Amino acid sequence: MNLTKIIESVPNISEARREDVLNRILRSIEGIPDTRILDVKPDFDHNRTVISLAGSAEGLKAQLLKLYESCVTEIDLREHKGEHPRAGAVDVAPLIPIKNVTMDECILLAKELGMEVAARFQIPVYLYEFAASTEARRDLAIVRKGEFEGFAEKIRKPEWKPDYGPDQIHPSFGVAVIGARMPLIAFNVNLGTSDIQIANKISKAIRNSSGGLRFVKAMGVMLQDRNIVQVSMNLTDYKKTPVFRAVEMVRREAARYGVNVVGTELIGLIPAEAIYETADYYLQMENFSPSQIFENKLMEA
Amino acid sequence: MNLTKIIESVPNISEARREDVLNRILRSIEGIPDTRILDVKPDFDHNRTVISLAGSAEGLKAQLLKLYESCVTEIDLREHKGEHPRAGAVDVAPLIPIKNVTMDECILLAKELGMEVAARFQIPVYLYEFAASTEARRDLAIVRKGEFEGFAEKIRKPEWKPDYGPDQIHPSFGVAVIGARMPLIAFNVNLGTSDIQIANKISKAIRNSSGGLRFVKAMGVMLQDRNIVQVSMNLTDYKKTPVFRAVEMVRREAARYGVNVVGTELIGLIPAEAIYETADYYLQMENFSPSQIFENKLMEA
Repeated sequence: MNLTKIIESVPNISEARREDVLNRILRSIEGIPDTRILDVKPDFDHNRTVISLAGSAEGLKAQLLKLYESCVTEIDLREHKGEHPRAGAVDVAPLIPIKNVTMDECILLAKELGMEVAARFQIPVYLYEFAASTEARRDLAIVRKGEFEGFAEKIRKPEWKPDYGPDQIHPSFGVAVIGARMPLIAFNVNLGTSDIQIANKISKAIRNSSGGLRFVKAMGVMLQDRNIVQVSMNLTDYKKTPVFRAVEMVRREAARYGVNVVGTELIGLIPAEAIYETADYYLQMENFSPSQIFENKLMEA
Repeated sequence: MNLTKIIESVPNISEARREDVLNRILRSIEGIPDTRILDVKPDFDHNRTVISLAGSAEGLKAQLLKLYESCVTEIDLREHKGEHPRAGAVDVAPLIPIKNVTMDECILLAKELGMEVAARFQIPVYLYEFAASTEARRDLAIVRKGEFEGFAEKIRKPEWKPDYGPDQIHPSFGVAVIGARMPLIAFNVNLGTSDIQIANKISKAIRNSSGGLRFVKAMGVMLQDRNIVQVSMNLTDYKKTPVFRAVEMVRREAARYGVNVVGTELIGLIPAEAIYETADYYLQMENFSPSQIFENKLMEA
């Protein structure tokens, strides 16, 4: 597999309860050249499975088209029940730049994929986040509002005309929502206090919604078992709001209460670049290049 | 190439001036399964070429045996002149653990390689650094002392009996020196002052030889073009004396003179682990694993 350019996709499909169906769907997307299945997380209550894929643009496009094809055949939303909101059998498929790939390339891939899905399966397609055609379609929650059951009506409104495909929902699939977004970094900062007010105040100070850093979402959380509090963050664009800057801001705000950071937790995955930039920042490096890392040099050779 | 376990080797060969000979030698070590040639640095004045190789234990062993074979044929030290001290046609070959490899595995490989070189080519072999059979043989400079010209006599002394092979030098090759060592990290810290005394005092405080950190070598250097001074460090075991700790000690010592670190420079390569540990340290991470890095997860998949 060519690892020089990597895109991630995290399609969410509306099936988790029928194991045989899920297995057939997963088998159909195996072994596509230049792709990997990184993770599969079925959630029984949600009746929804989160699949993590990675590959080249061309590979991922082929793999996702296979996924849409299988889900058109295997899933009928008229018979689907689950706690999580959903508007399609493949409910949402974001494309995420990981390595040597621009957001523009992911947007292009989202549009190409959307056109193909619409043309091949007669499914209406909405583009969201960075791929959105209007500001109102940026937010996934707003696009999906009404869900499968409400979309037969919603799709008739002029402002909800699909970006691609027919002006009516696919009877069993529903609609497809395809987009481009940055990788999400879930990063929690633990504080040396049990006072939840302090975690809440720091969260408020650092998050975008209340005046803080542009690409930080944050909330205070009580860790009962450790009797400490946590600032739980989602970093939605680590290139513009890097991990180290968010952590430094938490440290600075915590100091105002005489509280120290006692530890941090990375939840899930992080792009290598975010780790490199952290080392680069704290070591004050002048001309660091990732190709100075032995393993990267070896990959290039 | 299987990248799960990586060893590096940096053989130094006693040839740089005869281009055709060097090219034949290099061609002979190309395309060995599970190996890569990362870098080739010929030095005309030294008449010596530093080759950086990486691979699996088995791959590197095959590649290095090829190198010894070619150099036995191609190089005659009786006709070799150059500024750098040397005792063999392949003067020295260290084995260096990079990824998922222990020092013990590198020592074992050094010994296996040494036995093979001795048996196949009738070359006396000395083991050095971590592979050394006695404390006196740890230091490469001491092992090599006397050079090719002096070894015919040195080898007869009981304390310089070779670890493997005949008790007399190979007439054209000389002797082989094979060892195991940690990767060397060359890391310079630039200070906001032009006072070389401050760089010298900090170097003295932090280096092992004068009471500082165990695996740090350091000296003060004047950067004429920038009119600032530098603490130039070699970190000889980044696992036991990590980069971040050495840099923090420089910062702390510099503060004593009211001087700030204005930047740092990594010279050459660094193992990924040293970068991960730097991010881990400064972010105070509790349970970070390198497999949480997207690219590593993808490699595993």
